[in-house]
Amino acid sequence: MRAFAMLKIGATGWIEKEKPQMGPYDALVEPLVLAPCTSDIHTVYEGALGERNNLTLGHEAAGKIVAVGKEVKDFKPGDRVIVPAITPDWRTVQIQDGVPACHSEGALTGWKFSNIKDGVFAELFHVNDADMNLALMPDGMSLEQAVMLPDMVTTGLHGAELADISFGATVAVIGIGPVGLMAVAGAKLRGAGRILAVGSRKRCADLAMTYGATEIINYKNGDIVQQVMDATRGLGADNVIIAGGPASVLTQAVDMVRPGGSIGNVNYFGEGDVLPVPRLGWACGMGHKSIKGGLTPGGRARMERMAALVMNKRLDPGLMVTHTFKGLEHLSEALEMMHHKSADVIKPIVLL
Amino acid sequence: MRAFAMLKIGATGWIEKEKPQMGPYDALVEPLVLAPCTSDIHTVYEGALGERNNLTLGHEAAGKIVAVGKEVKDFKPGDRVIVPAITPDWRTVQIQDGVPACHSEGALTGWKFSNIKDGVFAELFHVNDADMNLALMPDGMSLEQAVMLPDMVTTGLHGAELADISFGATVAVIGIGPVGLMAVAGAKLRGAGRILAVGSRKRCADLAMTYGATEIINYKNGDIVQQVMDATRGLGADNVIIAGGPASVLTQAVDMVRPGGSIGNVNYFGEGDVLPVPRLGWACGMGHKSIKGGLTPGGRARMERMAALVMNKRLDPGLMVTHTFKGLEHLSEALEMMHHKSADVIKPIVLL
Amino acid sequence: MRAFAMLKIGATGWIEKEKPQMGPYDALVEPLVLAPCTSDIHTVYEGALGERNNLTLGHEAAGKIVAVGKEVKDFKPGDRVIVPAITPDWRTVQIQDGVPACHSEGALTGWKFSNIKDGVFAELFHVNDADMNLALMPDGMSLEQAVMLPDMVTTGLHGAELADISFGATVAVIGIGPVGLMAVAGAKLRGAGRILAVGSRKRCADLAMTYGATEIINYKNGDIVQQVMDATRGLGADNVIIAGGPASVLTQAVDMVRPGGSIGNVNYFGEGDVLPVPRLGWACGMGHKSIKGGLTPGGRARMERMAALVMNKRLDPGLMVTHTFKGLEHLSEALEMMHHKSADVIKPIVLL
Amino acid sequence: MRAFAMLKIGATGWIEKEKPQMGPYDALVEPLVLAPCTSDIHTVYEGALGERNNLTLGHEAAGKIVAVGKEVKDFKPGDRVIVPAITPDWRTVQIQDGVPACHSEGALTGWKFSNIKDGVFAELFHVNDADMNLALMPDGMSLEQAVMLPDMVTTGLHGAELADISFGATVAVIGIGPVGLMAVAGAKLRGAGRILAVGSRKRCADLAMTYGATEIINYKNGDIVQQVMDATRGLGADNVIIAGGPASVLTQAVDMVRPGGSIGNVNYFGEGDVLPVPRLGWACGMGHKSIKGGLTPGGRARMERMAALVMNKRLDPGLMVTHTFKGLEHLSEALEMMHHKSADVIKPIVLL
Repeated sequence: MRAFAMLKIGATGWIEKEKPQMGPYDALVEPLVLAPCTSDIHTVYEGALGERNNLTLGHEAAGKIVAVGKEVKDFKPGDRVIVPAITPDWRTVQIQDGVPACHSEGALTGWKFSNIKDGVFAELFHVNDADMNLALMPDGMSLEQAVMLPDMVTTGLHGAELADISFGATVAVIGIGPVGLMAVAGAKLRGAGRILAVGSRKRCADLAMTYGATEIINYKNGDIVQQVMDATRGLGADNVIIAGGPASVLTQAVDMVRPGGSIGNVNYFGEGDVLPVPRLGWACGMGHKSIKGGLTPGGRARMERMAALVMNKRLDPGLMVTHTFKGLEHLSEALEMMHHKSADVIKPIVLL
Repeated sequence: MRAFAMLKIGATGWIEKEKPQMGPYDALVEPLVLAPCTSDIHTVYEGALGERNNLTLGHEAAGKIVAVGKEVKDFKPGDRVIVPAITPDWRTVQIQDGVPACHSEGALTGWKFSNIKDGVFAELFHVNDADMNLALMPDGMSLEQAVMLPDMVTTGLHGAELADISFGATVAVIGIGPVGLMAVAGAKLRGAGRILAVGSRKRCADLAMTYGATEIINYKNGDIVQQVMDATRGLGADNVIIAGGPASVLTQAVDMVRPGGSIGNVNYFGEGDVLPVPRLGWACGMGHKSIKGGLTPGGRARMERMAALVMNKRLDPGLMVTHTFKGLEHLSEALEMMHHKSADVIKPIVLL
Repeated sequence: MRAFAMLKIGATGWIEKEKPQMGPYDALVEPLVLAPCTSDIHTVYEGALGERNNLTLGHEAAGKIVAVGKEVKDFKPGDRVIVPAITPDWRTVQIQDGVPACHSEGALTGWKFSNIKDGVFAELFHVNDADMNLALMPDGMSLEQAVMLPDMVTTGLHGAELADISFGATVAVIGIGPVGLMAVAGAKLRGAGRILAVGSRKRCADLAMTYGATEIINYKNGDIVQQVMDATRGLGADNVIIAGGPASVLTQAVDMVRPGGSIGNVNYFGEGDVLPVPRLGWACGMGHKSIKGGLTPGGRARMERMAALVMNKRLDPGLMVTHTFKGLEHLSEALEMMHHKSADVIKPIVLL
Repeated sequence: MRAFAMLKIGATGWIEKEKPQMGPYDALVEPLVLAPCTSDIHTVYEGALGERNNLTLGHEAAGKIVAVGKEVKDFKPGDRVIVPAITPDWRTVQIQDGVPACHSEGALTGWKFSNIKDGVFAELFHVNDADMNLALMPDGMSLEQAVMLPDMVTTGLHGAELADISFGATVAVIGIGPVGLMAVAGAKLRGAGRILAVGSRKRCADLAMTYGATEIINYKNGDIVQQVMDATRGLGADNVIIAGGPASVLTQAVDMVRPGGSIGNVNYFGEGDVLPVPRLGWACGMGHKSIKGGLTPGGRARMERMAALVMNKRLDPGLMVTHTFKGLEHLSEALEMMHHKSADVIKPIVLL
């Protein structure tokens, strides 16, 4: 079968792969819709995960089940499903012990697609533990919406969870690419009052306002920390969500959050040896500014929760889809669109 | 009256000061026991708080009330009291809004003694809001115990609070000076199983074992991160408390804690522009390793809680007192003892 | 001055009262808008608080400051302010010790208006600790919106806080009077997916749908527990908010919540010796179904947070105002309207 | 093989059973030590779980593995293991969704032994999912200690977890049978200051003092609520753990806890339709007195955590063993000893 793969660092291409094997708890899925992610760009062009050869890319998909293992109980061939980007091993002692499932066998081990195993950019892909890692696509959900759930929606909303927002809080969201937009939506869905969205691209800024931002902070207008302080009478934001940016963004986040506030990071930091916490901004270690960061939860229940938000009209992630391709062969184009992100690109998808 | 003060960065000495003024909610206290703190050393010899002239030093005291303002209800002259190092303004909108009281008017503003106002190293000192910031010294509590509560006990135990320890957890405590020793005791009092205490001085290590450490990790035996990983079958500690060390200790803490674990810092970081979070050790921002750090809570209820631990024999902080001086005039000697910490010094005190 | 008071259990009337005295931290406020509350009905006609004689009623108001004590810093005569129903004493050892401020000197002691002291249904009323217990009414906020904040909004949203809702959760809200409606809005603002609103009056049901309910559960259609179980494939709701009903509603709430779920009560239970937890529904004490209940937080920061929700268009509580009177003299009528609640009454207000 | 079983409500006896079957993830274990539990008494003599016929009793055991299924990775025949009373199905969507594992397929479904399937009082017993539900018995742990972990230790400590204790808190523990004693120990291990243990039997009271109680409250000396209020200057306890008693104990617990405090129940309520929350004691629903109750966590990691407490000398549960029998045939005697609990019985065990 055909698969769109990372050939090596810096190079992608179409290759032929064996149809994947399946264990008794697993499923094989044929994609109905796929989306490239900035992570794919990091993986291929920055080698952020290290070298990979002929690894199928992609971890954002919804599809149709083609086959299930004999122990699978809740799904059958023909079912339309949402496939989370994160598909953990759920039966581990670490989970029992309080480790988030996405790290159930070590840090980030729940992130399998396009990292530990072949991703979803193929005619067919494998899902481990189908009963635990697939969710039925509800009737009435569009494919545009469905393909935003596996990563963009759940990751952005996890930022809001980590930031620990309370009613009426003033929240700064750094980065308004698709994850940042969903972080804005997540902050609104946790009951934030003001949401200061930090970004510069107009299309993103407009959509941030639609999703609940109340002000846009543009770095072109000066230091973003200073802008946030000015906007909060010098107190700082109650919470900050980091959804993009280089290592230095952590410094800015700490500087702009108030004592007792918290920072939730869902950004994948791809470069640098260290992420610098500012000593004085962190009050020499004594300011009660919590710093949390984590990979999104994955698995079935999480996808069902995300789907419930869409079906109950709490959130329409489909608005982020700015470009739609038809046909598997356009994956390359879609990926390159994420690579050379022009001003009007938020999220391209490929329908099949 | 006589006071032992920071004359300027690098210099201390005895000076004459006016007897302090008192507002209607305040009290004047005469010390019964005093202790110098490593923070005093930072303040004077590293200029960590910036320049200060003729500022009375000291924030660890128990004493006898000499006078109270007319609105003070629960205390009267003659009462023997424990004086917390942190004496916040309690009636602020920030506290209402969830900001810890020690930052009630801005970061660290609850830390007044020997920082914002004259400290306790004098014949008499002033306490703001006595009803909210003093606690009666229980009958039967020794002065040695009493003077450990204002800072050492409450700060060390706060490290355990921030680290969010659960029953049977494996906890690493970095630093086993007096705060670290109380962090060890705090970890035990939260139900830790193994406690890996990181330090090298024998007297401290012995006392750490007394307070609940189960193993000593000595940097002289190699990289402490590696030692902790080896001791935990490569999984890392569930929680880490930072109770001492330079900026790089944050890197070590992140590296040695497991995914989903948490770090509680009560160390006063005195040097460096940034505290480096290791990008890979923090799983590129996605490892769910929480980083928290904060000044100890202060005030009356906190001191009463700490006293309850001592009086109910949960903890004997008096064991940390290695050197006892008699007479105010020995404060200088006691301070220098903290400055040139020899191997057998844990905590000197001055009885009056 | 004139005041509308509870003369004794079962009787209300207009009386003449002395203009209230004011301490140095206090303020006197002239109402701009007032609203009667179901609690006033409980107080007068059920004697729920016990006997009261000539106690001015009312605890929902926004107004204009007439005078402030000499220690008041942030407010001045002429300021338009929102007055929280709950005005705690903020400087107490209990708050230091973790007791919610609304119980700062004992259970419910933060609830002063029309309970411990004269309420707001008068030409002028007294506010204790103005800097801590008043909030500026933002420009652009309507009086209809402003008068919903002191109790209805903050109480309903507190129900959502107590119920501990997570993204996509299925939440049942029992009772859709004004507090229940705000509980529905609060559940939506915490990111609930489905919201099952339990009530029967059409006008309330319609407004519940506007505020975010996805289904109405009507007791006229059968047992509400069974209806919730049917709607959730037998699993039960993730969270339940109790916002109305007699003692037996606690039984229903426990029966309809899933193991590991939580119940947040903001209902004032006015009758009965006990509130019955069903032994089997609570899994013989072992089902991890948390039961929480509490008076709303009060004070300034809370009102500012609630105002931020309105001004940032997260919530429009003004939609609940079904009847508007003009002139203080109509308070009696408005109160009786709450007493003999006809089908179209949600919330009457009185403009001044 | 021989098994000691509940023949029907009110009757026990020895029966012959088939050797249990084993799935690929399971294990068969031969007991080394067994203990009867008060729950067994409820099950047999009060029919608390309903009728059961020829159901093997017992859920407290440590033993030696005889056989493991082919998918078991971490255990092998001959291993000495601690067997938790609660052995959940770990691979369920409910756990993903935040439901405690002990309710992974419905309330209390993690409690299988002597409830849903045959218990451990037999020559051989079956353990589902061995890798997830067994823990190695550490070298140096006595059998007396080991057999206390599966239920008594973990349940008592869970009471302390549910009660949410902070440093220096005043905690009341109602009931000082073996679970209550471990709740006392748990409260101490969470850093409680005063621990008021409510009970009357001298041997239990003495052991409660050993485990950390600071005072004994004896109902023979008057109303226990009043005694707790008197002991706390009318404020009430910060936390209450319920570890025994009839339905009315919930009323007492609510009455004796302070506003903002919390109650953790680990008592199995066996009788009555309802558990009465006192309306006034609960401040009419508004006192922020949290009521939590739950079955202990089970599984491997939990047992490893409990074992870590014993091996690191935080806790010696072996002190509770008051009577030791040798030989399987004495199970009947041991059970009857729990049934007709004389004043000197805390916990009998049977060595094999």
